[in-house]
Amino acid sequence: MSTQTEMKPYVIGLDLGGTNSVFGIVDARGEIKATTAIKTQGYDRVEDYVDACVEALNVIIEQVGGLDKIKAMGIGAPNGNFYNGTIEFAPNLEWAHNGVVPLAKLFSERLNNLPVGLTNDANAAAIGEMTYGVARGMKNFIVITLGTGVGSGIVVNGQLVYGCDGFAGELGHVIMRHEGGRSCGCGRNGCLEAYCSATGVARTARELLSTTQEPSLLRELDPEKITSLDVSIAAGKGDAMAKRIYEFTGEMLGEACANFAAFSSPEAFIFFGGMTKAGDLIMDPIKRSYDEHVLKIFKGHAQFLVSGLDGASAAVLGASAIGWEM
Amino acid sequence: MSTQTEMKPYVIGLDLGGTNSVFGIVDARGEIKATTAIKTQGYDRVEDYVDACVEALNVIIEQVGGLDKIKAMGIGAPNGNFYNGTIEFAPNLEWAHNGVVPLAKLFSERLNNLPVGLTNDANAAAIGEMTYGVARGMKNFIVITLGTGVGSGIVVNGQLVYGCDGFAGELGHVIMRHEGGRSCGCGRNGCLEAYCSATGVARTARELLSTTQEPSLLRELDPEKITSLDVSIAAGKGDAMAKRIYEFTGEMLGEACANFAAFSSPEAFIFFGGMTKAGDLIMDPIKRSYDEHVLKIFKGHAQFLVSGLDGASAAVLGASAIGWEM
Repeated sequence: MSTQTEMKPYVIGLDLGGTNSVFGIVDARGEIKATTAIKTQGYDRVEDYVDACVEALNVIIEQVGGLDKIKAMGIGAPNGNFYNGTIEFAPNLEWAHNGVVPLAKLFSERLNNLPVGLTNDANAAAIGEMTYGVARGMKNFIVITLGTGVGSGIVVNGQLVYGCDGFAGELGHVIMRHEGGRSCGCGRNGCLEAYCSATGVARTARELLSTTQEPSLLRELDPEKITSLDVSIAAGKGDAMAKRIYEFTGEMLGEACANFAAFSSPEAFIFFGGMTKAGDLIMDPIKRSYDEHVLKIFKGHAQFLVSGLDGASAAVLGASAIGWEM
Repeated sequence: MSTQTEMKPYVIGLDLGGTNSVFGIVDARGEIKATTAIKTQGYDRVEDYVDACVEALNVIIEQVGGLDKIKAMGIGAPNGNFYNGTIEFAPNLEWAHNGVVPLAKLFSERLNNLPVGLTNDANAAAIGEMTYGVARGMKNFIVITLGTGVGSGIVVNGQLVYGCDGFAGELGHVIMRHEGGRSCGCGRNGCLEAYCSATGVARTARELLSTTQEPSLLRELDPEKITSLDVSIAAGKGDAMAKRIYEFTGEMLGEACANFAAFSSPEAFIFFGGMTKAGDLIMDPIKRSYDEHVLKIFKGHAQFLVSGLDGASAAVLGASAIGWEM
């Protein structure tokens, strides 16, 4: 550990979500020393949002010994662009849905010119896995986040792939079905996200309920309100249809990973997010389908792992890890 | 230019093809100072092949002032693995179709321990474009080689993507059609290569000839013997069906590139190989289809270019460029 790290042993992580903004002050081993949170919504101007953040942050900064102990800050945020530290046209943030907001700079100015880095949530997850999680020591891996959407963070030769514009790694929007594919929020059809996100899983449930007569615990629910959590609970109770929904989802993910291998031949695919709580129900079909679809030369080269970061604080840890990279 | 480069101003390139093995001695600006070639076939043992190569090589090495003037050697070869300098199970090479051949080491031993690097043809093309061609100064781009097969060399953050095993960048084997896809030489169905290689183009021609009644210059040929060159010649004469074949091929390539953008968001896609001689006939539908299929955030970020390396010596230049990386 360098002298600088000893003198400045902490980084700040901000997991900027549509509902909550969660802060953590983290040491080099991924231990969260102090944490706080504010609501993300309720601010028309980004300056007001940053003011509220810094007010909350100052309390925990004092708890760890003041700003002198902090090396840098990392932010994981929707539509975050690493290259220029901005959030760009984020539909769920009232102060950033309509333009380009220089969030990293605004925080830096309010924190005595602390280095501040920012990237999207999935890239933050990938850096988090590399710094504190199951990807420690790995040079080539792909993190796939299964949440409301499907995101990805790709690491090649030990570096995150940002591409020419900072937007690389949108594997949720690789087209999986060219004909008759499901419509996707991005305006196109057949994207991986339309099938394998939490909302995609709920969609699969509704499709199966309306096109089959098969009995299922899911029939007791209002189809329009079914969530991936409902499917997970039903599957946990042994419901055959719910299990098949995970099977279908995992098969599609495995097929997608087989294509991703042809790109960067990673040593691991790491799955992140609430849906991974389904465990083998989702991981087994992923692995089976990958083996079936992958090009022979890649067979057996990649591991399939679940995130090694503690669920509740995974996103904050990921964001904080950007700080060590600054 | 460093002192070492001044003292050792040249690299050797070997373009190892199924028929010919072409050597060039190249300077840092991509000028070929001397060249020679031998037949690739006719050697049962790799040692005999290397002996024959070195015998031919020694003549041109003397022409440029001896081995002291040479910094390193690069080899572009089918199934070449950069990490360990081997050729692995190359179906078209009698001395390497059935095992792992340490070709880089064998050349190094015969050339006074000269550093020797080896990779597959498409990766060599990518390094060549970065060193001498249209990708000079680019950090993120993808070379797609359109030949008997479809190969690719991917550069991210200024480095070639080899993946965990040296086999990354097999974009010809990304699945483009999940149902009813064409069979591919790799044993799977629906791969990009089955549609967009030279053999894929000939296949498209045969399909159109047998499923339509449309008049075409191509009907004058034996369908089983049609090549992509025949299609190109017919298209050059204004043949509507031949033009449509290129249209179909370009559309599929553009669709594939749209998916590749979601991975690494390159600043350019660079097309390499005989089929690029069709010019706008193939490039226009690629660009049109890309714009139609790509995720909005990537739109307009990538250029579509044709290789900047002189056709006849492009492969040798690419191979030689590996030498500068050693």
